[in-house]
Amino acid sequence: MSNNHNQIDNVSLIPLGGVGEIGKNMMVVEVEDEILIVDAGIMFPEDDLLGIDLVIPDITYLKKNQERIKGIVLTHGHLDHIGALPYILKEINVPVYGTKLTLGLLRGKLKEHGVLSDSYLKHVYPGHSVEIGQNFNVEFIRVNHSIADACALAIHTPAGVLVYASDFKFDQTPTNGQMADIHRLAELGDEGVLALFSDSTNAERPGYTMSEKVVGESIDEIFSNARGRIIVASFASNIDRIQQFIDSAFENNRKIAVTGRSMINNVHIAKELGYLNIPDGMLVDMQDLSGLNDDKIVLITTGSQGEPMAALTRMARGDHRHINIQDGDTVVVSARAIPGNERSVGRTINKLLKRGAEVIYESVSGVHVSGHASQEELKLMMNLVQPKFFVPVHGEYRHLHRHANLAKEVGIPEENIFITEPGNVLEFSNSNGQTAGSVKAGRVLVDGLGVGDVGNIVLRDRRLLSQDGILIVVVTIDKKGKNVAGPDIISRGFVYVRESEALISAATSRVENALEECEENNVTEWSVLKSKIKNALGSFIYHKIKRRPMILPIIMEV
Amino acid sequence: MSNNHNQIDNVSLIPLGGVGEIGKNMMVVEVEDEILIVDAGIMFPEDDLLGIDLVIPDITYLKKNQERIKGIVLTHGHLDHIGALPYILKEINVPVYGTKLTLGLLRGKLKEHGVLSDSYLKHVYPGHSVEIGQNFNVEFIRVNHSIADACALAIHTPAGVLVYASDFKFDQTPTNGQMADIHRLAELGDEGVLALFSDSTNAERPGYTMSEKVVGESIDEIFSNARGRIIVASFASNIDRIQQFIDSAFENNRKIAVTGRSMINNVHIAKELGYLNIPDGMLVDMQDLSGLNDDKIVLITTGSQGEPMAALTRMARGDHRHINIQDGDTVVVSARAIPGNERSVGRTINKLLKRGAEVIYESVSGVHVSGHASQEELKLMMNLVQPKFFVPVHGEYRHLHRHANLAKEVGIPEENIFITEPGNVLEFSNSNGQTAGSVKAGRVLVDGLGVGDVGNIVLRDRRLLSQDGILIVVVTIDKKGKNVAGPDIISRGFVYVRESEALISAATSRVENALEECEENNVTEWSVLKSKIKNALGSFIYHKIKRRPMILPIIMEV
Repeated sequence: MSNNHNQIDNVSLIPLGGVGEIGKNMMVVEVEDEILIVDAGIMFPEDDLLGIDLVIPDITYLKKNQERIKGIVLTHGHLDHIGALPYILKEINVPVYGTKLTLGLLRGKLKEHGVLSDSYLKHVYPGHSVEIGQNFNVEFIRVNHSIADACALAIHTPAGVLVYASDFKFDQTPTNGQMADIHRLAELGDEGVLALFSDSTNAERPGYTMSEKVVGESIDEIFSNARGRIIVASFASNIDRIQQFIDSAFENNRKIAVTGRSMINNVHIAKELGYLNIPDGMLVDMQDLSGLNDDKIVLITTGSQGEPMAALTRMARGDHRHINIQDGDTVVVSARAIPGNERSVGRTINKLLKRGAEVIYESVSGVHVSGHASQEELKLMMNLVQPKFFVPVHGEYRHLHRHANLAKEVGIPEENIFITEPGNVLEFSNSNGQTAGSVKAGRVLVDGLGVGDVGNIVLRDRRLLSQDGILIVVVTIDKKGKNVAGPDIISRGFVYVRESEALISAATSRVENALEECEENNVTEWSVLKSKIKNALGSFIYHKIKRRPMILPIIMEV
Repeated sequence: MSNNHNQIDNVSLIPLGGVGEIGKNMMVVEVEDEILIVDAGIMFPEDDLLGIDLVIPDITYLKKNQERIKGIVLTHGHLDHIGALPYILKEINVPVYGTKLTLGLLRGKLKEHGVLSDSYLKHVYPGHSVEIGQNFNVEFIRVNHSIADACALAIHTPAGVLVYASDFKFDQTPTNGQMADIHRLAELGDEGVLALFSDSTNAERPGYTMSEKVVGESIDEIFSNARGRIIVASFASNIDRIQQFIDSAFENNRKIAVTGRSMINNVHIAKELGYLNIPDGMLVDMQDLSGLNDDKIVLITTGSQGEPMAALTRMARGDHRHINIQDGDTVVVSARAIPGNERSVGRTINKLLKRGAEVIYESVSGVHVSGHASQEELKLMMNLVQPKFFVPVHGEYRHLHRHANLAKEVGIPEENIFITEPGNVLEFSNSNGQTAGSVKAGRVLVDGLGVGDVGNIVLRDRRLLSQDGILIVVVTIDKKGKNVAGPDIISRGFVYVRESEALISAATSRVENALEECEENNVTEWSVLKSKIKNALGSFIYHKIKRRPMILPIIMEV
């Protein structure tokens, strides 16, 4: 590394996602002609993105600057930080660096997409560093989060040190015994940090986030009181939480089984890599559960978000292959509903209660704590690192705004705080910080195998179709423009046709009238015909029933 | 009233909504051959009810027993308690009883629907009673709630007293000076109550719900610190809250203006009826605001739920006719996001902050308190009323379940607690309580002017259309079954056609092949042709792009 490039005093930062939005976290770091990428996550689509499976960052800028990219570093293994890699590595194949568990989870994803064999993955231990290109020395610093092996990064560049505190919290009593490395953060602060980028998810929450240990105590109490089967749902990536389930099961002399694809995969990966400690003989297959007494069973499952196809949701609906929920079962939902999922989680809880289970969930117990730092921890991070510039990341505008206010409270000058947007270029040097232009950025929608082939027009049509359905009017005309068959009106998602025959037949007359009028006036231009049909039908339907279905005239010529 | 019918010792209760769900509250009370209805509310549609405007109870049972219905009594003026009346009064025209504000708000709704002139509305003061039919004496008992003039009902019947504690809380320091009538509730408890029906909305919340006065104190502080304009958003029906805004504005020497249709209507009604006290000259028109200094303005607006067309949402988007949000504005969102609205509320807050306003909202302040009783108040209600039977109402299953547990805690025997569902008939007498059969109940969907004409098939189609759009295949054949035009494939909500020409043209070939095959095999049955087209196209598209658009083959014969 060229530490003595005294002429290099500038570093540029371009977020391609994760600022002003929750998810698709991705940051581009540029020093001279070299590029380093931090994280490459997906975003789960909001309700208005009808039919979309997931959203990834637009990487047009990276494709254009492909030869300058030296590597991708990952902070932890959550999908909003690694999930876009299967798509991005198909376009830009560069080395990927991360901790062991992060890469283990990534490997699973890459395999699913058939890009694993082409990828170069290199693991780094927390507390260690890696040289990337001429200008980057990236140090992995352990932090606490709702997944093991999460790290903040200290990116040492000729222009100064950047601390990238991705998703984190400070847990003073972590269940895996591994504290965030506050000593190293303090040391960096003493030495001087050019800029801090820090997680804003919980910037609205006062105080401290509770320790994971609190969950352990609740779990212990629930497990020791339960008399029947215990079924626990959690995020499949929360390995420390799963370890707590296993420990509590062991204490209470119960076996464990695992259900749900991502839970099975992650438990397998974490066990292989030594992140889960499961005593011999304790893990049993689902089909062997029937041979055990109810008070010997702990089932660990997916479905904490009420996802329609997840195992717990199936149990609640009564269509899980192996498990029928019954009186005496204790179900623990050990997760928080992600915004937007409240209703599906609520429905699952309602159904489980109706089937006779006791259900323990966040609103009525201590079975979940957040993985993100609250206000006091956010301030602690700033006070440890003492950065010259501060950039709140990972949050909607209101979170970034609140986080910026916290920064002012601890004494960072307002002009050194930057609330930014995807694509904006931030330029930092020891003497100056500024926004310097922007590059193309945005969202790319993934729907099935299609990446980027669904855009605003398709979404607008889906929205229209979802509201009032569609009316299709087919007319066949001959070469002279004479109507020889139809008009036929076919509807979908509009009304029960059988109960609305009168409406449809009146509508058909309207179209016939419109067509006759066109014939009388010698209108033969198809586009005019279509718009006449559309207008006649649209205004009639709206007048009659106050709905605006999509109206699609089709003209066939024979 | 026939108090001495000693032979009548039985009362039946049939909820038509509001149990196992949030909204469309409606309860049928039957004594001998007489029916009394309590409330008739709407439910706001959940996300899966695509395009549906609102949901009302199925009143098939009431239509069949129309001549037995003696009246409808209303507990308060919220739409989930009165909103279905414009639809229901068209079918069953019976007298409606409620307090003055409740009927004032109802009158506005009935007028909109053109059914006001046919309706018989009779107002009752809190603390007073009304005889309805031979078997009902209904006493209106003041409670606190997030709307003025809310009442619990004591329904005196020959079989005993029913206390219907619809939405309520106990506010020990109400801002309008009107305490819930705990004395009368205690007296009823002493005299003996057959059954209590009580609001379960907050049954998961420990402790007490805070007093509305707390909001007043926060508002006072915010108003006295603000230097620019103040814009406050709240539910239009929360008259007490609006009074607090007015009082604080007056204290701070500011004028008020009102925007948003429902806010304007409700302020008008409440002022007319004496529920809002606005000092002379204080209320100004929106267009006159420009003549005032910023620090003389309080604007009261709709939009606290981020509704797309509401005034605050328009301001956030920058397309409100009169108000441009600017630096120095203070916006107070004095309401809680109703479940399902979190994201739209969040988006509004983000946009207001970006425009430079200071935004004060629930997660970071005390500008809202719930209108519903928490656990300690729910137990207080049970202990005051001391009912023989207890029925938790107004809540999803998990709320009812939790409320039932609270009832057990205060000593109501488990066998006297009934968690019920719409349509179930409960029968109570002094000696016995039981579920006795059921009647037709459910939901009726309102979409535009259509009531009940959208059902499961239409909704399923809308869902399909919203996910992957539609592919329409039109084929014209002659009388002999020969393909004379097409196949033409038209898509909406599927892919960008311009970027997917190759896909569509390959798909067209598939259909052509399928048609040729049919011709070779002399298949002329349209249903067979259609299913061949559907299968060929569906499997091709899924294989290519992993999507399942709706496929609609249309055959035209010339």
